[in-house]
Amino acid sequence: MPNISERGQHMPPSPIRKLVPYAEAAKKKGVTVYHLNIGQPDIETPKPVLDAVRNSNFKILEYSHSAGNESYRRKLTGYYKKFDITVDHTEIIVTTGGSEAILFGFMACLDPGDEVIVPEPFYANYNGFAVEAEVKVVPVTSGIETGFALPPIGDFEKLITPKTKAILICNPNNPTGYLYSRAEMEVLREICLKHNLFLFSDEAYREFSYDGENISALNLSGLENNVVVFDTISKRYSACGARIGAVVTHNRVILDAVMKFAQARLSPPSFAQIAAEAAVDLPDDYFDEIKEEYQSRRDLLVSLLNKIPGVFCPNPGGAFYAMARLPIDDADKFCQWLLEAFSYEQQTVMLAPGTGFYATPGLGKQEVRLAYVLNRENIAKAMECLGKALEVYPGRLQ
Amino acid sequence: MPNISERGQHMPPSPIRKLVPYAEAAKKKGVTVYHLNIGQPDIETPKPVLDAVRNSNFKILEYSHSAGNESYRRKLTGYYKKFDITVDHTEIIVTTGGSEAILFGFMACLDPGDEVIVPEPFYANYNGFAVEAEVKVVPVTSGIETGFALPPIGDFEKLITPKTKAILICNPNNPTGYLYSRAEMEVLREICLKHNLFLFSDEAYREFSYDGENISALNLSGLENNVVVFDTISKRYSACGARIGAVVTHNRVILDAVMKFAQARLSPPSFAQIAAEAAVDLPDDYFDEIKEEYQSRRDLLVSLLNKIPGVFCPNPGGAFYAMARLPIDDADKFCQWLLEAFSYEQQTVMLAPGTGFYATPGLGKQEVRLAYVLNRENIAKAMECLGKALEVYPGRLQ
Repeated sequence: MPNISERGQHMPPSPIRKLVPYAEAAKKKGVTVYHLNIGQPDIETPKPVLDAVRNSNFKILEYSHSAGNESYRRKLTGYYKKFDITVDHTEIIVTTGGSEAILFGFMACLDPGDEVIVPEPFYANYNGFAVEAEVKVVPVTSGIETGFALPPIGDFEKLITPKTKAILICNPNNPTGYLYSRAEMEVLREICLKHNLFLFSDEAYREFSYDGENISALNLSGLENNVVVFDTISKRYSACGARIGAVVTHNRVILDAVMKFAQARLSPPSFAQIAAEAAVDLPDDYFDEIKEEYQSRRDLLVSLLNKIPGVFCPNPGGAFYAMARLPIDDADKFCQWLLEAFSYEQQTVMLAPGTGFYATPGLGKQEVRLAYVLNRENIAKAMECLGKALEVYPGRLQ
Repeated sequence: MPNISERGQHMPPSPIRKLVPYAEAAKKKGVTVYHLNIGQPDIETPKPVLDAVRNSNFKILEYSHSAGNESYRRKLTGYYKKFDITVDHTEIIVTTGGSEAILFGFMACLDPGDEVIVPEPFYANYNGFAVEAEVKVVPVTSGIETGFALPPIGDFEKLITPKTKAILICNPNNPTGYLYSRAEMEVLREICLKHNLFLFSDEAYREFSYDGENISALNLSGLENNVVVFDTISKRYSACGARIGAVVTHNRVILDAVMKFAQARLSPPSFAQIAAEAAVDLPDDYFDEIKEEYQSRRDLLVSLLNKIPGVFCPNPGGAFYAMARLPIDDADKFCQWLLEAFSYEQQTVMLAPGTGFYATPGLGKQEVRLAYVLNRENIAKAMECLGKALEVYPGRLQ
């Protein structure tokens, strides 16, 4: 029997999904599990978005243009315009989810062995795409004490080698919820210009910016040829299953390369493009309501977390995640214990261990990520469970 | 401005799409273009498949399981059973089109620099996935004189090096339409066992086997750990835009690795999985009708081609493609000339130049691929155009 590839062996398993069997076992025992572990919102997909697909009347489910339907890309330029981002429809290539946008960006810009600096903690799947592209992720650590602000410029510069080709940020951030300030974006601009680096910016949570302005990397002047934005409709319209994202850049050389990757896989999904196009037509107040809902959940979650003795959670400025420090020995053990050995009034909580979001070994052992994708009533119940759990957890730190 | 990757530069552009601007220009001049250049069938997607999506009534478009909905995978085991292929639902990982299945298979089994032997002419996008995975495609040439039969075992063995990890076939074949016989499949079995190679088998056109039996690589005894099948619903149900495929293998180590790639990109598209599941429930006579339609198109196309002086087209046993040898100097020039400089009664034909399907430089210059995805009336008109074109083409060979 031939051996599988080293790449296949090195590919990291999902750090979140490994807890799934424990959650399933808990549910079989009749325990209610509050899922704060994944970014799957409970918010309904807007009806006009689903109806656009349900009311479609084509007869052949054909390949679309490899860059996505032109009508959709043209409409997207209007969407970006609302954020003062001026792009032409030819500067947008529609992808199969934000996931494919990241993979295409890595492959088009980076060769095997090239390095990309990423502030940690970071979205764990960046590791996976890096292994696929044979690229090295170099973490620069941000700390919970500063609320996971951008590390100082000196920390980046210490890590830059001849192999460094790019910096990757997520803004607002998954998993920390941190929203980069204009000053921080200017720092990134400077580093990228000085060291001739690409700036990859994952802007999946653009609308969910609560405290302060969202600065798109596409608006950094003089950086037009360096910036590649990874986008997705998944969180924005609660349409994770659509698998529609985009690569957006002003750099024509990158666009030409990404287009070749897009052609090889033929086209993004056709049904979902119909949904995505309808989503652009939603009234502006759609986001006002959604944002208000998430902000009130955040406020509740963070205040309840900080009331639990020994817990610290900085207030995240955006997205729908919070990273909290807990008085525990080991987040992986704790999250498994919550599902396997604990319940309070037949309820428990599923969290994502912090370790999965760090590339530096040993970091994140006292941290967990919470996705506030449940309504306030359930968030309150989940935090009650968490408080009770921390009272009795055998690995509690003093 | 930072340089893009070498991978992005080496990535081949679609050999078919480069003719698109010429086709668009022809249409603007009022010329009807018969598209025999791409595998986009004109056959309607079965209504129950589209209706399943249109009648769906979920409220949140959620991520599915990374391996695809379990209900769909369980149903697929029944589909495979009809071909005497016995697989468990855990041996199927649903992918975003056959394209992603190929990429996952390459990444899970092959490392950068590894070699995969592919009978040429072959589906041009294999080159693209090979560049993405940094894998080397080694062509073994099949000839039009034998109808593109499997090259002799000695031709394969001459190409095997310590870097050779796999053989990739497409059966029935795109672009040649060749259907591998049981004896040929046994030859492949022997080579793979003797040299400890993976056998990747792209079985996108399984149903479209006209002359003789379709032997799935999954049915080769003793090769259970070597075989990885790439599958797709695109052609089978005229559902190219769904983007639903599958990796199917009995090898658990490969399944575990592919699953990690699948988790990194979260899930295949949700709307399309509903369509795909409904497709499995179509009555068995659905394929009888479709197959009869394609077979009658093939019979017409091949007989008309061989009536044109100087043209030779072997009779393809499956799929919906034919490779024909034309009396021309250069297929790329000819295909462009057809769109740019020729018309007969305000009509012309778009073909795929043979060169795009060969990795060996210089091969395929007298060959074109024709996809019989148009109805008989249009095929007849297209062949009339082609005959007239060959009479006046300036680069005609004597």
